[in-house]
Amino acid sequence: MSKLSHYDSAGTARMVDISAKNATTRTASAHAFIHMSAEVLAALPNNPKGDPLEVARIAAILAAKRTPELIPLCHQIPLSRVDIEFGIESAGIRVKSFVSCTAGTGAEMEALTAAAVAALTIYDMTKALDKGIVITDLHLLSKSGGKSGDYKREKND
Amino acid sequence: MSKLSHYDSAGTARMVDISAKNATTRTASAHAFIHMSAEVLAALPNNPKGDPLEVARIAAILAAKRTPELIPLCHQIPLSRVDIEFGIESAGIRVKSFVSCTAGTGAEMEALTAAAVAALTIYDMTKALDKGIVITDLHLLSKSGGKSGDYKREKND
Amino acid sequence: MSKLSHYDSAGTARMVDISAKNATTRTASAHAFIHMSAEVLAALPNNPKGDPLEVARIAAILAAKRTPELIPLCHQIPLSRVDIEFGIESAGIRVKSFVSCTAGTGAEMEALTAAAVAALTIYDMTKALDKGIVITDLHLLSKSGGKSGDYKREKND
Amino acid sequence: MSKLSHYDSAGTARMVDISAKNATTRTASAHAFIHMSAEVLAALPNNPKGDPLEVARIAAILAAKRTPELIPLCHQIPLSRVDIEFGIESAGIRVKSFVSCTAGTGAEMEALTAAAVAALTIYDMTKALDKGIVITDLHLLSKSGGKSGDYKREKND
Amino acid sequence: MSKLSHYDSAGTARMVDISAKNATTRTASAHAFIHMSAEVLAALPNNPKGDPLEVARIAAILAAKRTPELIPLCHQIPLSRVDIEFGIESAGIRVKSFVSCTAGTGAEMEALTAAAVAALTIYDMTKALDKGIVITDLHLLSKSGGKSGDYKREKND
Amino acid sequence: MSKLSHYDSAGTARMVDISAKNATTRTASAHAFIHMSAEVLAALPNNPKGDPLEVARIAAILAAKRTPELIPLCHQIPLSRVDIEFGIESAGIRVKSFVSCTAGTGAEMEALTAAAVAALTIYDMTKALDKGIVITDLHLLSKSGGKSGDYKREKND
Repeated sequence: MSKLSHYDSAGTARMVDISAKNATTRTASAHAFIHMSAEVLAALPNNPKGDPLEVARIAAILAAKRTPELIPLCHQIPLSRVDIEFGIESAGIRVKSFVSCTAGTGAEMEALTAAAVAALTIYDMTKALDKGIVITDLHLLSKSGGKSGDYKREKND
Repeated sequence: MSKLSHYDSAGTARMVDISAKNATTRTASAHAFIHMSAEVLAALPNNPKGDPLEVARIAAILAAKRTPELIPLCHQIPLSRVDIEFGIESAGIRVKSFVSCTAGTGAEMEALTAAAVAALTIYDMTKALDKGIVITDLHLLSKSGGKSGDYKREKND
Repeated sequence: MSKLSHYDSAGTARMVDISAKNATTRTASAHAFIHMSAEVLAALPNNPKGDPLEVARIAAILAAKRTPELIPLCHQIPLSRVDIEFGIESAGIRVKSFVSCTAGTGAEMEALTAAAVAALTIYDMTKALDKGIVITDLHLLSKSGGKSGDYKREKND
Repeated sequence: MSKLSHYDSAGTARMVDISAKNATTRTASAHAFIHMSAEVLAALPNNPKGDPLEVARIAAILAAKRTPELIPLCHQIPLSRVDIEFGIESAGIRVKSFVSCTAGTGAEMEALTAAAVAALTIYDMTKALDKGIVITDLHLLSKSGGKSGDYKREKND
Repeated sequence: MSKLSHYDSAGTARMVDISAKNATTRTASAHAFIHMSAEVLAALPNNPKGDPLEVARIAAILAAKRTPELIPLCHQIPLSRVDIEFGIESAGIRVKSFVSCTAGTGAEMEALTAAAVAALTIYDMTKALDKGIVITDLHLLSKSGGKSGDYKREKND
Repeated sequence: MSKLSHYDSAGTARMVDISAKNATTRTASAHAFIHMSAEVLAALPNNPKGDPLEVARIAAILAAKRTPELIPLCHQIPLSRVDIEFGIESAGIRVKSFVSCTAGTGAEMEALTAAAVAALTIYDMTKALDKGIVITDLHLLSKSGGKSGDYKREKND
């Protein structure tokens, strides 16, 4: 099992050196689900404006770009694509994020941060209706590129 | 049922007016759980240094303060306290955040953002071991203060 | 005529002292106009989604909150309201911003920054169609509160 | 006429994928004009210190670097040059910004954001004298590089 | 001797609770010195423009406002004044910062951060001439307000 | 002696053009020392947790990434490594920062900013014990890469 790359022998935090890594094209996709009652779902502006999702989409794109300010040991990687998809289901709202970059390290955290902030923004815009909303299943869906190779989560949601 | 306070009659997003609200003391607490394998948990520096949690703690405190930059319609509220607790359990790591403020609106989103960023940071620092880590049960634990009154989630985690 | 309050006797920049000022409720409203061709206007998703305006609205609300990071000598004032209105006219898009705060200084720059960033965002989202778009008439519409009293621009747009 | 590149078929906002674009050298220049009375112009420290313009210059350079935080769908592009020029004229102050980058997309928004923030900063530093100041003619002057080719605005200011 | 207020019994970092503290007027002043050779000092634009100092002044004012983003356990306090003074001496440049706020905690870190960033900016603008420049004597000069009472450093610089 | 590269003939600030420079691997290391009494040093949690240093380490890594937001004329350079070392000595705490990047300009300011923010954070976490703490000897230790060649400070601390 590989060791925790964020720790050196002394066990202190550091931003690991990726100087020797070539910049290659990488992608990552992440997922989150916002559980909300049918009542709250029904109250979402269900006309074509669909604003809560549009606000969350913009918040997620902006947050993806600021991931290295939020996650201390993340490298600064310029994202070449950020895309957010929402699905309205009977139990709540499903969020999927898709990011791409050409960098020396992957963009998994950017994808996860985008999904998390999208979910938090939807929470913020609906919490007046229900304080019991729960965000769950925040995880990586897939990644490609980089020496650790590709990854695809086996469907279980 | 109260209406979605983020929407005016035209259904467009706005930062709602809290000018008329008095600044009162408010608290909020939020929760997240990071599911990880026993193998990954065992690999966490299990000596008193406990660094992954310390990095996550600092990231969470910083993120709580930047919530209005991340969640578009949040008001800027100065936090008078941010505290993060971690519990290491057999199935993973439990995160609880506690925030206080004296403001015209509550700090639920600050508590939730802190818990989310703590969980994402732990994910970042352990993902080299397991890409299947899942963050779940991100929700409000309790809030106090404000005209909507107090809230306490019935224990179900 | 009052002197330039940003300059002390030595003519060096400073953030002027407002310690002695009481926090009172203040409002400010600003305006901008984005001149674009009928062709570009027609290409705006003219269905109820109206996305370019929704993206601009969110960008403007976020920018208003970050005004003291952008305008060096602005004080940090917590905004109690930010609202953005758009009007689609034959010659382009009109933007109006409305902000409120309870602070020791006014929020004119927050209103102007919101209007400017809304206009820049619309420019960004339509520039693929026309590089000749022009943003004009960026100015204050009105302000209330504070010792300098109220101000209302005589209609000339 | 090219379609709005910020919109996919579903009409939802996204940060468009530039993964396939080569990083090439690009430049962009933008313009803004701050209309102010002769009285306000005369009150500008007209000695060699010229501070209001120096503060605006620094604000503009800093803002250019933060454009992707302000304009939601902008990519993060490292700027290799930012330069701001001011001209004091009888009717007010003319701002010109010049930016360069080596990237997969252009820096028009960085140039426009720099010009806008320079103008807003000058407004902030002179508004004590006149609330009627107007910022106008905020537009692109020229761009070079990229597949959409070069652009030069025909002089009309 | 008072205990380290940033640590609770478990020794983990937290943003200490200041909910119970009244907002009172507080001031803080800090100092830094940039040692540079006579040659570098002579090369500073020694005309009235004095630009390196003006750039540093603006950088310092902006940095003071962002202290809680940089120093993890600092509270967000709105500054009512930030002022920077420079003295050109035979051995280098002396920086003094002066900040005021009305808050439940003091602004010592804001004053120190302003002085540090002013010094770093001067370093940045002169390093082409001499990589041996040293910033020293970064310390608090004085503070007033708050329950810990006033403090004035005995002159020793 | 090279001229001040931040100034053009007109003596106005600008972000110098590095378009023509090739991106090469560069490193920089900086130093700071926090003088504190034996009493304050003894009060530092002297168990393996060593928290004040861990908080400072994270703050320093985050600050290094945000250097171009703090130092106005710095270019945005993606850091490939940030590492912070602390030494506890009889007179105080020694900080050393190590950064690497592949860019068209060096990362000296990133190294210096990291060292400065680490020192300021330690100050913040110990100031309750002693307001007389002094940060000194903030300077470059070494740099490599770039046309100006390598630099190594002769040991004098």
